[in-house]
Amino acid sequence: MNGDAGARTDGRRIAVLLEYDGTAYSGSQYQENGPSIQSELETAIHKLTSETVRAAFAGRTDAGVHALGQVASFETTSRLTAAEFVSGLNHFLPEDIAVRSALEVAREFDPRRHANSRLYRYRIDNRAVRSPLERNRSWHVARPLDAAAMQRAAAGLEGKHDFASFAGPFEGRTERTLRRCEVIAGGGSITVEMEAQAFLPHQVRRTVGPLVELGFGRIEEKMLMAWLDEPRASAAGPAAPSCGLYLVSVAYDGLDFGLEDGNGQSA
Amino acid sequence: MNGDAGARTDGRRIAVLLEYDGTAYSGSQYQENGPSIQSELETAIHKLTSETVRAAFAGRTDAGVHALGQVASFETTSRLTAAEFVSGLNHFLPEDIAVRSALEVAREFDPRRHANSRLYRYRIDNRAVRSPLERNRSWHVARPLDAAAMQRAAAGLEGKHDFASFAGPFEGRTERTLRRCEVIAGGGSITVEMEAQAFLPHQVRRTVGPLVELGFGRIEEKMLMAWLDEPRASAAGPAAPSCGLYLVSVAYDGLDFGLEDGNGQSA
Repeated sequence: MNGDAGARTDGRRIAVLLEYDGTAYSGSQYQENGPSIQSELETAIHKLTSETVRAAFAGRTDAGVHALGQVASFETTSRLTAAEFVSGLNHFLPEDIAVRSALEVAREFDPRRHANSRLYRYRIDNRAVRSPLERNRSWHVARPLDAAAMQRAAAGLEGKHDFASFAGPFEGRTERTLRRCEVIAGGGSITVEMEAQAFLPHQVRRTVGPLVELGFGRIEEKMLMAWLDEPRASAAGPAAPSCGLYLVSVAYDGLDFGLEDGNGQSA
Repeated sequence: MNGDAGARTDGRRIAVLLEYDGTAYSGSQYQENGPSIQSELETAIHKLTSETVRAAFAGRTDAGVHALGQVASFETTSRLTAAEFVSGLNHFLPEDIAVRSALEVAREFDPRRHANSRLYRYRIDNRAVRSPLERNRSWHVARPLDAAAMQRAAAGLEGKHDFASFAGPFEGRTERTLRRCEVIAGGGSITVEMEAQAFLPHQVRRTVGPLVELGFGRIEEKMLMAWLDEPRASAAGPAAPSCGLYLVSVAYDGLDFGLEDGNGQSA
């Protein structure tokens, strides 16, 4: 669209890398009945530039879900530099949301459709007693989990499958390619990392739920395989709670937010 | 006192290992003008046992300071087991305080006087942009710090010295033996760990303050050495903010809370 003779030839598109503590929000996207990351970002953009914009997000995160590297983008006629967007938006954003980095991108950039890869992390605190410093940051599972069994089952979910059983209701194709599904245990905590170009709704939390059932010994690995073989919406059982889930990063061809610690991956 | 013919021969002393997020509290000790960890613990003990007790703490922590392994103890005539104290107190404690473990100890046990060693950790987030998930959990220092220079200076503070310059006003001897003062850098964060049998008031935060000034290049290592050589209350400048400080653990001869991850040391 650059070079168009239309009314907005001076518009630019800015992409921002967002970190947030999702505890106080109804989710990433605008909602009528509660504060959202989107509305906070759009309000901060308005305060900074006096423009009313609509921000597009790479991934929808539910109420209580966190992000280390969510990507959002918006059009603006402002002449502020990317660095000025970072400091200016952080001045106006609440303390539980921050812009880690910003870039000027092509006008046609779509953070959702152009994403090559999304990495989610799910954190389980598997110590006997709840941890005050981990509250709202991980799922406290007091009973010991068999992390090695969880890892074996997780590896079996990798690859191209119909994941309908591990997702909420979804209209459309439910085949996805899970590039990585890894269970990492250590120091009383268990982390599940899942990477794919795209996920079904609630897919990460609806995968962690049955993996934890398996870690308790309540279900066997062949049950998970059967859910892959006979896909049926939500068959694999309830989702793990949202407080343990982090959108870690979203990757794009030729887009680098230039953070030394990656797109939020260090935390 | 065991075997006394006094009124409370049936009393036992229980020691508890506490984790807390200090953000919402005026400090560990009872205060007239705000909620304290002590008052929350004593209230939970009262709800559990119907007894009104006074809890003694290993170390005073200020408003906003956290603990992974604070130790407190109290007398009780209750017949509850140590495990029942853990689950019962956690039922009544608010979600930002938890008892990680409990032990029956000798009646004469004094968590403050009998401590052999205290380990504190101070966390600095040294990335350019503030981190929402690290808010109230670390001190955000946006300008790059020279962690290697900080580590060299920290090592120079180890040993037996008069630390009056690195403490708030204190009546009494200001010599202490700093067994370890270490600066650990990695992944955008800088951690200062300090270990001693006993510390002066605000000593950790009043050591981190000048170490950060040194990390900026504003003062030199010889300045820190001069403050050791010519002790003068608070000479080394202001304290680092409380939100970055954690009481990690307190060690006693012959007392083991039996946690696999140590007395809170894993977090």
